Amino acid sequence: MYAPLEDGGNATKEGKELLYVIKIGGNIIDDESKLKNFLKDFADIQAPVQGMGARKILVHGGGKLATKLAEKLGVEQKLVDGRRITDEETLKIVTMVYAGYINKNIVAQLQSHDCNAIGLCGADGDVILAHKRNHPVIDYGFVGDIDAINTNLIRSLLEQNISIVFASLTHDQKGQLLNTNADTIAQELAKALSSLYDVQLIYSFDKAGVLLDTNDDSTIISTINPARYEQLKSKQKIFAGMIPKLDNAFAAINCGVKKVTIGKAEQLRELINGKAGTNILNE
Amino acid sequence: MYAPLEDGGNATKEGKELLYVIKIGGNIIDDESKLKNFLKDFADIQAPVQGMGARKILVHGGGKLATKLAEKLGVEQKLVDGRRITDEETLKIVTMVYAGYINKNIVAQLQSHDCNAIGLCGADGDVILAHKRNHPVIDYGFVGDIDAINTNLIRSLLEQNISIVFASLTHDQKGQLLNTNADTIAQELAKALSSLYDVQLIYSFDKAGVLLDTNDDSTIISTINPARYEQLKSKQKIFAGMIPKLDNAFAAINCGVKKVTIGKAEQLRELINGKAGTNILNE
Repeated sequence: MYAPLEDGGNATKEGKELLYVIKIGGNIIDDESKLKNFLKDFADIQAPVQGMGARKILVHGGGKLATKLAEKLGVEQKLVDGRRITDEETLKIVTMVYAGYINKNIVAQLQSHDCNAIGLCGADGDVILAHKRNHPVIDYGFVGDIDAINTNLIRSLLEQNISIVFASLTHDQKGQLLNTNADTIAQELAKALSSLYDVQLIYSFDKAGVLLDTNDDSTIISTINPARYEQLKSKQKIFAGMIPKLDNAFAAINCGVKKVTIGKAEQLRELINGKAGTNILNE
Repeated sequence: MYAPLEDGGNATKEGKELLYVIKIGGNIIDDESKLKNFLKDFADIQAPVQGMGARKILVHGGGKLATKLAEKLGVEQKLVDGRRITDEETLKIVTMVYAGYINKNIVAQLQSHDCNAIGLCGADGDVILAHKRNHPVIDYGFVGDIDAINTNLIRSLLEQNISIVFASLTHDQKGQLLNTNADTIAQELAKALSSLYDVQLIYSFDKAGVLLDTNDDSTIISTINPARYEQLKSKQKIFAGMIPKLDNAFAAINCGVKKVTIGKAEQLRELINGKAGTNILNE
């Protein structure tokens, strides 16, 4: 059992409870033993103030499992300009793997650690409304861009001390499920819920955080605020692949999210405690 | 839009709201157009008293889709004494198809009919606790027998005017998902919720109800009470395959369920209105 140190006072300072929105990367989902440890750590997150529930949301996609199932079923994965296209058969596979196999196994594992959890996709309770991406050149297929988050059901579940596990699918209210980027779902949930909670958004992936040298975890930058970000970008110290992630992180911060942390899933305890990862701050 | 006629007074008579627990048969799930019509009818069910929400639960298994996927993936379906065995690979398929593909598509379709719905399996919110079947002779594999229903979350969702769609999977609180008979889930939900609601349990399948001649829908018996059931059984008027279904129905009635109706899914409106199907009553 562990509680965040750095944010220990947040829940009372502004009268809002702390909410963790944690995106789990595909590299953890593909590794049964790493996933098991991660879920144990997730279940163990405690509220900073005793007697208050720890509010937690987990967002996941599907790692390589969907690709493997597509291969077995002979469903060709179409790429246009390096971007995956979600055709009808691929959507079927993604729905089975993300919302079925992965989501329900995560929930069952959390229950075994005494963490009451519920697995949802964006269609459930009409929680994440999206529309099919309308791109001038590329038809991405059944891919969703988010329009709205309905926070009432989310709040009701969190207040019943139930953690929510989101599979990265949304819907269009016209009966169509849509494959949707899990990073974006985590960000939109964090933003929408920031009026109700002090939200810490955690992106877990396979690196220790934002690194000066992508191959060396020890070159981690522990804190980035807007001024430092501009400085690092102008000196080209930041690996190009990290720039969209950081732009998203600052977008979240600018919409009321208290803190965004980027780091390694295996270090979830330390990411929560502020002892690992890169923290993106407003000032 | 339609409302039940026969039970129009129930919600006020005893101060309990009416709850419909509806089991949908595999023959409907396998037929896209029949399923579409059924879900439209389900969405249209109204509360008997204006201004009160219509409380609705739908329970489904998977029809032939899971068998078809198993065939495509080369996963052999093992039968022992005519009973299907749920081995690890079959459980994976069932979880993908029932809790993923079918469950989320039903939810998305209900949302398109303005019926706010949430798709769950028994692990979600720890709603249906079960144990792996312990049979003296046959190892059924990952098959669950139900121990308990946690009604708090179900009630909270229903009171938020959210209909619940259950995929026929439960869990053992030790991290194991378990394939569980959908008829039994519907029955156990109906029984557990009968202290909170006036429950009408509807088993929809491919026949018009309990028939004197299984091949002739016009020979339907419209009402069966315990005395009539004994009479019909002693005269061997009831098709042997219906006896377990009817025994289950009477078990539900004896545990507080107000009414059990058996009939054709295509006639859901009439089953609700008391104008079709066989009604199993206590007296």
